[in-house]
Amino acid sequence: MNTKMIKYIIGVILKLEASFMLIPLFLSFFYKESNLVKFSHSITIFLSFIIGFSLSRKTPENTKIFAKEGLLIVSLSWILLSLFAALPFFISRQIPSYIDAFFEVVSGFTTTGASILTNVEALDNSLLFWRSFTHLVGGMGVLVLALAILPKNNNQALHIMKAEVPGPTFGKLVAKMSYNSRILYMIYIFITLLIIFFLFIGGMPLFDSVVHAFGTVGTGGFGIKNTSIAYYNNPYIEYVLGIGMLLCGMNFNLFYALILKNFKQVLKNEELRFYLGVVSISIILICINISSSYESFSKLFRDVFFTVSSIITTTGFATVDFDKWPIFSKTILLILMFIGGCAGSTAGGLKVSRILVLFKTCINELKKISTPNRIFSIKMDGKPISKDLFNSISTYLILYIFIFFLIVLSVSFETKTFTEAFSAVAATFNNIGPGLEAVGPTGNFSHFSDFNKIILSLSMLLGRLEIFPILILFSPSLYKKLK
Amino acid sequence: MNTKMIKYIIGVILKLEASFMLIPLFLSFFYKESNLVKFSHSITIFLSFIIGFSLSRKTPENTKIFAKEGLLIVSLSWILLSLFAALPFFISRQIPSYIDAFFEVVSGFTTTGASILTNVEALDNSLLFWRSFTHLVGGMGVLVLALAILPKNNNQALHIMKAEVPGPTFGKLVAKMSYNSRILYMIYIFITLLIIFFLFIGGMPLFDSVVHAFGTVGTGGFGIKNTSIAYYNNPYIEYVLGIGMLLCGMNFNLFYALILKNFKQVLKNEELRFYLGVVSISIILICINISSSYESFSKLFRDVFFTVSSIITTTGFATVDFDKWPIFSKTILLILMFIGGCAGSTAGGLKVSRILVLFKTCINELKKISTPNRIFSIKMDGKPISKDLFNSISTYLILYIFIFFLIVLSVSFETKTFTEAFSAVAATFNNIGPGLEAVGPTGNFSHFSDFNKIILSLSMLLGRLEIFPILILFSPSLYKKLK
Repeated sequence: MNTKMIKYIIGVILKLEASFMLIPLFLSFFYKESNLVKFSHSITIFLSFIIGFSLSRKTPENTKIFAKEGLLIVSLSWILLSLFAALPFFISRQIPSYIDAFFEVVSGFTTTGASILTNVEALDNSLLFWRSFTHLVGGMGVLVLALAILPKNNNQALHIMKAEVPGPTFGKLVAKMSYNSRILYMIYIFITLLIIFFLFIGGMPLFDSVVHAFGTVGTGGFGIKNTSIAYYNNPYIEYVLGIGMLLCGMNFNLFYALILKNFKQVLKNEELRFYLGVVSISIILICINISSSYESFSKLFRDVFFTVSSIITTTGFATVDFDKWPIFSKTILLILMFIGGCAGSTAGGLKVSRILVLFKTCINELKKISTPNRIFSIKMDGKPISKDLFNSISTYLILYIFIFFLIVLSVSFETKTFTEAFSAVAATFNNIGPGLEAVGPTGNFSHFSDFNKIILSLSMLLGRLEIFPILILFSPSLYKKLK
Repeated sequence: MNTKMIKYIIGVILKLEASFMLIPLFLSFFYKESNLVKFSHSITIFLSFIIGFSLSRKTPENTKIFAKEGLLIVSLSWILLSLFAALPFFISRQIPSYIDAFFEVVSGFTTTGASILTNVEALDNSLLFWRSFTHLVGGMGVLVLALAILPKNNNQALHIMKAEVPGPTFGKLVAKMSYNSRILYMIYIFITLLIIFFLFIGGMPLFDSVVHAFGTVGTGGFGIKNTSIAYYNNPYIEYVLGIGMLLCGMNFNLFYALILKNFKQVLKNEELRFYLGVVSISIILICINISSSYESFSKLFRDVFFTVSSIITTTGFATVDFDKWPIFSKTILLILMFIGGCAGSTAGGLKVSRILVLFKTCINELKKISTPNRIFSIKMDGKPISKDLFNSISTYLILYIFIFFLIVLSVSFETKTFTEAFSAVAATFNNIGPGLEAVGPTGNFSHFSDFNKIILSLSMLLGRLEIFPILILFSPSLYKKLK
């Protein structure tokens, strides 16, 4: 185990966090916030820089790492990042409980958007900014960013990117990994700026535009108003966000293909077509199901489009209380929560490509029983899928189900109904944010005990990092080796 | 496709059904029931005998069948069997709707025990007997019985047994399939008689003892009192049934091993140990969770033991309204509903052996990430599991999940809550009977529309026959070939 390299990279990540925090510190001066807020930003910057610096003082001679180190670097970075990021909320007493603050920033970094705040509007602007900024960092990944910035890094970074970028496979855009992450981040920043621009010209204040753009590109869903997006009551803004979320639920590699004018690759991409197909069918079915409660078609379509886009991309912005919709519509939403966005997007869930492979397996089985002698292979984008990939997808599904029900059991002690327990886990494990009933779009997670807030924080991390990086922390043989 | 052989076997099954129906006909005379009831039995016997006879008049020269024919024989037999078995209820007007009667007998044959009856006590005894007798026939399987009775049959019967006997693998007891099914049925009848005996000496009337024994060995769960087993309010009876259900959730091959005094095989059987382990842990956890609402430990333990035994074996008998238990306990029950009994038992669910293989896969993955270079293989009873078996189990799980959510979507139109929709499908697809809320132990399925009663009937058949035999009926290429 290359522990020196693990320490070094975690140190770099903490220094990076310290530099990020300069923005909220600046904002706390700009908005003339209390000295306590300024102090809480400063002390956090100081602490994370000092610890980051001491960990990364020496560049290790041996920079070689393997898959296991990649997993560990990612999980430890994310946990430490969250532990420090929670400090300003706690020290400033704007979130009096440290565990609540930790839950809130884990929810931010994992782009879940689940909140323990009953009154988000009470927070100071610099803290609201920092809360939403975690979406931006977590969406594309903090280690992807580190790899983009670090001057020297070689293809061993592959293990880190594999562990942090969601989806069953990892498509390399270019041979050199640092370029790869730089391209991804440039596209990501460009889309962020685009959304800020479109929100701003639609009449949203600049500060609101920036934080909502963070929530959109990261598919996170933290708002700054108690009624989320419904506050603005502006159809234009809802469409900008709705389309923005849908775009960020797509594989970012496809945007690179667009830049290279490789339109064929985009149009023929099966995952994208399935994703857009699921979105369209869901919108149609829900529109039919709830049409009787609407007088205007344009309002009906807008609400449904926004909600479907928000749920499948696991963002969690709300313009309407979908918990009041009929059970059929809610069941569709619950299914969308599990599907999630495309691989290589900022969205959560099981990912469209996994669902597509599993769906094709079902079709295959159907064909097999009537013509057992023919051999069918499952293809994606025209290429047959390897058995290893199929195995890794089905194993992922199995692990996912086991862990899911383990967490449901844990939270079921404190929920009033089974739906609440089930949807609280669905909403955190899939990084969505709101679930149904008490954790629905008008509710929040404040009523859970500290123990279950930690469990649900783990649930969010397990979902965002796709199980393995977190699971490895629970592997006994890991600690045997460290001795 | 050997359609002649398919017709022939279905004909035999219908003749078998006609002969079964002689018992309720006799009972309708014995209990001096109305002429309409006697007529409805007689006409059903007549119809099923005539049609059965005409289908099986000629023994086909070519008796060779393959897996596909095996699947078709099983699904068509079960559907026709149910269509005829529903007639007495419908013709006697004791269940006025034919679709309701069909739902009720499908629920019987598949040993689900879900009911559309709001007042079961209103039914005549001969019809109550017939309703519970379907559990006995469906539990071990009607085709297994046909194979046991038919004079000549060879190892091609393997395809039929594979399609009807639940579980991922099919263990042959002896080389000759007809002996195999005879042994299974003899054990089955013996356990039935044993339960009748123990219930009867405990003070239950003979008629009640017989029908409840059918409900127990088939792990079906149809009662003849509106309050199910709670009516008798007799701890001894509850223990006889509780233990009886647990036994019938075991692999029947193990009873054969016991007869051969092969105790080692039984004690070392991993599926059995896992099954008993899950039962014990569930009992302990639920006891702790609900202990505060009980004054007497013996009553607490009895209620929990009975409910856990009834749910994991997917029987569905009730002595207590578990829908009133806390969410944690209900979540455990819901998980047990999905686990189900052992392979080769009369119970439903995913089967313990499948869960065990999936569980071992998870443990394996955990080991793999920390020591990626070692190759781990998944073993059951000391022998490594083939990749094909693992693939077939994971494909089964995937198909199971897809079909599950498709049915949930369909019934969600008519349920008041998501829990009701989810548990209605869980209860039918896993062949349990009662679910939670409106379909809970004190509720029933009468409020669903005809369309969803058919969908839920299909759900029960899909669960009992483990998807493939029913799925093949929806395969377009099947109909192309029949042209």
